[in-house]
Amino acid sequence: MNQPAHPLARSRGGSRSRATHSLAAVLAEAVALLDEHGAQGLTLRALAARLGGGAASLYWYVSGRDELLDLAADSVLGGVLISVADVRTDDPIADLRTIAVAMFDAIVDRPWLGAYAMRNTAAQPNSLRLYERIGEETMRLPLTARERFHATSAVVGFVIGTAADMGQEPPAEVVSGEVSRDEYMARATAQWRALDATDYPFIHHIVDEFAGHDDRDQFRAGLDLLLAGLELRAQGGRA
Amino acid sequence: MNQPAHPLARSRGGSRSRATHSLAAVLAEAVALLDEHGAQGLTLRALAARLGGGAASLYWYVSGRDELLDLAADSVLGGVLISVADVRTDDPIADLRTIAVAMFDAIVDRPWLGAYAMRNTAAQPNSLRLYERIGEETMRLPLTARERFHATSAVVGFVIGTAADMGQEPPAEVVSGEVSRDEYMARATAQWRALDATDYPFIHHIVDEFAGHDDRDQFRAGLDLLLAGLELRAQGGRA
Repeated sequence: MNQPAHPLARSRGGSRSRATHSLAAVLAEAVALLDEHGAQGLTLRALAARLGGGAASLYWYVSGRDELLDLAADSVLGGVLISVADVRTDDPIADLRTIAVAMFDAIVDRPWLGAYAMRNTAAQPNSLRLYERIGEETMRLPLTARERFHATSAVVGFVIGTAADMGQEPPAEVVSGEVSRDEYMARATAQWRALDATDYPFIHHIVDEFAGHDDRDQFRAGLDLLLAGLELRAQGGRA
Repeated sequence: MNQPAHPLARSRGGSRSRATHSLAAVLAEAVALLDEHGAQGLTLRALAARLGGGAASLYWYVSGRDELLDLAADSVLGGVLISVADVRTDDPIADLRTIAVAMFDAIVDRPWLGAYAMRNTAAQPNSLRLYERIGEETMRLPLTARERFHATSAVVGFVIGTAADMGQEPPAEVVSGEVSRDEYMARATAQWRALDATDYPFIHHIVDEFAGHDDRDQFRAGLDLLLAGLELRAQGGRA
């Protein structure tokens, strides 16, 4: 199998025995560090300390911090790929939904991941395989190559974009603990209720939905609209 | 009209005459600075220098850099709001498309904007109005309040998420000018073509589409799927 040039395939001189950890162990620790402390917490020095070695040894695996983030993001998507390996029903739309939800769940609680997810598939072999996997589902639908390319990109873009947006750092006063997440939401809801109903009819119409909403439900509802549009397209219909 | 607490409504002591620039002028210059140099280029000192004053005077308008970014993002969406003021055809789906495309176009060429677009509508009055405007289109469709809330959030999320993703900084070697954008795309396409066709049937199927694709077309195709799903829902159908 030909793969796009993998960063690890680069010759760095020296012998393989210079590597004191496996790449998998390095990435697992990098993901743990990122999950605990965010992107700002990831330094080669901090990672090396957790692994019990010097930062220099990490250059055996990565050219620097940016590549480390690419590979850490890719390793999370590798986990998604494994978790959906057995997903193959008679209904490609249902399978696309299952895969998209699994991908969303892996990204949404990781504010550091959104910016690196599928950013550079030449350096992210698992991301490339996941993109292929999602695309293969569209090949089971009677569409043109262009429609399949657009559909796959739309699903991937909706998942990553929504997860990255919902997974963003909450406002400073919530991060600092000054106000709780519930208090913050209650305050935002109260502000919306206080808006003039003549000027903001829509806000008033949906404020109760907003007050009780769950990000995951909101994502799935949007995904369902996108997939309903795709299914309609596959049936040759236009709404 | 009651608005959510606007940052400018905060009392800062001192008299209004301390302000030497209008807020509009400050934000226009902030957007110009951000467009030219990205988020990293925006400092209160650099902005004050462009305006011909001291950084201290900017605290009349904003509590700091973060609020300045919120308001700069909001002022761009204020421009979108003005540009779509007359959009009101018989077809709410068509109007949603027009508004979404205008919003996408305003965000996609601004890598700094994605992270701040509609982040905090309590401090972003134009963003709140734009959200209301999009939501009002869904009120012309026979849907429940929950469906309208989800539809509006899905459209807004798809626009911001896709624009933010497509507007991200290109890879380091493109930014540095080491390789041109066309060369980079040609290289990525060549890597995809070199993949084994048995392992990557989808990539091979769509590589010609990928090679010639335009980000804006790709966004519109995804938006069309989402809106087709919404129209179907409004018709009471499920694909």
